Amino acid sequence: MKGIREGKTRYTATPGMPELRSAIAQSLSRIAGRPLEAEGVVTGTGGKQGLFNACFCLFGPGDEVLIASPYWTSYPQIVTLAQADPVMVQGSEDRDFRLTPEDLEAKLTPQTRGLILCSPSNPTGTVYSLDELTAVAEWARERGVWLIADEIYRAIYFGEDRDYAPSILEIPEAKLPNYVLIDGASKSFAMTGWRLGFAFTEGPLAAKMSALQSHVTSNASAPSQVGALAAFSRTEEARVAVGSMVEAFRRRRDLVVGLFAELLPEVGFVAPKGAFYLFLRVDALFDGAITDSTTFCSWILEETGVATVPGVAFGDDRFVRMTFATSDSILEDAIRRMAKAIRER
Amino acid sequence: MKGIREGKTRYTATPGMPELRSAIAQSLSRIAGRPLEAEGVVTGTGGKQGLFNACFCLFGPGDEVLIASPYWTSYPQIVTLAQADPVMVQGSEDRDFRLTPEDLEAKLTPQTRGLILCSPSNPTGTVYSLDELTAVAEWARERGVWLIADEIYRAIYFGEDRDYAPSILEIPEAKLPNYVLIDGASKSFAMTGWRLGFAFTEGPLAAKMSALQSHVTSNASAPSQVGALAAFSRTEEARVAVGSMVEAFRRRRDLVVGLFAELLPEVGFVAPKGAFYLFLRVDALFDGAITDSTTFCSWILEETGVATVPGVAFGDDRFVRMTFATSDSILEDAIRRMAKAIRER
Repeated sequence: MKGIREGKTRYTATPGMPELRSAIAQSLSRIAGRPLEAEGVVTGTGGKQGLFNACFCLFGPGDEVLIASPYWTSYPQIVTLAQADPVMVQGSEDRDFRLTPEDLEAKLTPQTRGLILCSPSNPTGTVYSLDELTAVAEWARERGVWLIADEIYRAIYFGEDRDYAPSILEIPEAKLPNYVLIDGASKSFAMTGWRLGFAFTEGPLAAKMSALQSHVTSNASAPSQVGALAAFSRTEEARVAVGSMVEAFRRRRDLVVGLFAELLPEVGFVAPKGAFYLFLRVDALFDGAITDSTTFCSWILEETGVATVPGVAFGDDRFVRMTFATSDSILEDAIRRMAKAIRER
Repeated sequence: MKGIREGKTRYTATPGMPELRSAIAQSLSRIAGRPLEAEGVVTGTGGKQGLFNACFCLFGPGDEVLIASPYWTSYPQIVTLAQADPVMVQGSEDRDFRLTPEDLEAKLTPQTRGLILCSPSNPTGTVYSLDELTAVAEWARERGVWLIADEIYRAIYFGEDRDYAPSILEIPEAKLPNYVLIDGASKSFAMTGWRLGFAFTEGPLAAKMSALQSHVTSNASAPSQVGALAAFSRTEEARVAVGSMVEAFRRRRDLVVGLFAELLPEVGFVAPKGAFYLFLRVDALFDGAITDSTTFCSWILEETGVATVPGVAFGDDRFVRMTFATSDSILEDAIRRMAKAIRER
């Protein structure tokens, strides 16, 4: 709010205020262990706009874009807006759907131009190890495929081995394909409504994305940029705040995982290693009345008041997604009510 | 900032907070003299996003979209992003470029789907009378052409006959074509950097625009929505603030028009009836070194430090645009320096 009081409320350059782009580049450079240029940062109205900019600039009619499935709902829509064809690739459920080069190779055609990956994943919470990411990246590099890595949940990582989920920026440069990193302030700094996200890339694509954005929305809200600058700049303060937020999510992850194991052992799920979602496999409960994820969600909402999202929206109709980004008591109450409704059915 | 302190910083619905859409619909209803539905309001990241949403939803390959020229730079770019073809229509310079049905009829083809009009105009400052607007609207209605009316400068109107420039909303319903109104908080409330604009339309297009936006950026920044809500709701307070802003612009308009008439009578311009631009005709000064609007702008910037924008960016290379949205003393100094440089050349 200090920035707003100081009158920082005019237009900025389309890709963002220079000081914000610098602060973001510095934070990415720390992850990469090498200096990354502020010119590669294009801030926009949410990480979503970074995805839109990237897909619209990179892909067109006839192009195929691989999408790791289950996927965030907007990926195929954005690819379609760019007039390219989304091609879903689902990894093995045994591996929590994480893709291998073999999975990707099976979907490769001469039209394949891109791959969209989300780790930590929305909706599953699965997280690629650095080795797994590197294998996928090398495959993309060898095939000339652009890697679009959505790392918006990077900071919300439950592993004890490191502070954040592995990033494509940690991959040695010699193994990196052409890439666009998607990130933002919304998840890490609990600034969802501020709509401040960014795309980062190396090379001439950043200028192209900025030119596109200049005709769609121009700059992200200036007050949001000022807020994000404070978040990205106050490193120590931000680190502590993010740390306690992640600690709370980890506790909630443990709570919901424990409750499901205790109360509904027949409902499987992907064990979340990051983000704040539980992707529940509910097809064992399907019958004459509840035939798919959509009817399951309607039924459980009516019976218990608990809102879940049908897995069909993420590409897998056997699952539903629930969020654990709410209080412990609400979560415990919700799961107990779900268990009761399922038992009494 | 009250809204921010109260924690109104989460996601909102894509087209905006219900209370903001209502406040906007109420303010539009007052202009229209009939009740307009909040469902027709889709707020986004600037009026620009409203234009993008409208063009992307309405037009596609093979469609032609008429653009009143001189035009705001982004119109043809946005039409092209929608894969449609922009077709410029330039009205007579005697009429300050305002279009008549005859001008439009001359450019009509079986592919004509839309018409983009800006009044008060950026870059010329010309303003359509309600009769002129109505004539254009009737032509569009009869021809089945969508009218996209950019009224972002509506409040900045210098006429003494009314409080704001004539709006397409004042046209009797029986004469209105399918239309999209573009407006926002940026110009009227000096909130440019907040990036809060909207499109208003009647019928099913609003839901389509919202669906598109949900995959491009989702909601406009929540703090900006809260700021705009305050601006649109505090009617009396806002009216007084806008009134004194317009008074300042009117004084500056008189100042710059007077100075040009006194110091540079050979430079013609469109007499601005609204907005805050002076569109100067400089082709009489072209010679071996200054051959077009771009070289003129470079020369005058180098000689005097005064920044103008080449008319070629607005579709007319004989002109350059200068803004009078700055202080009286800066304006007077700038014009004196321009006059001196042109005299001594």
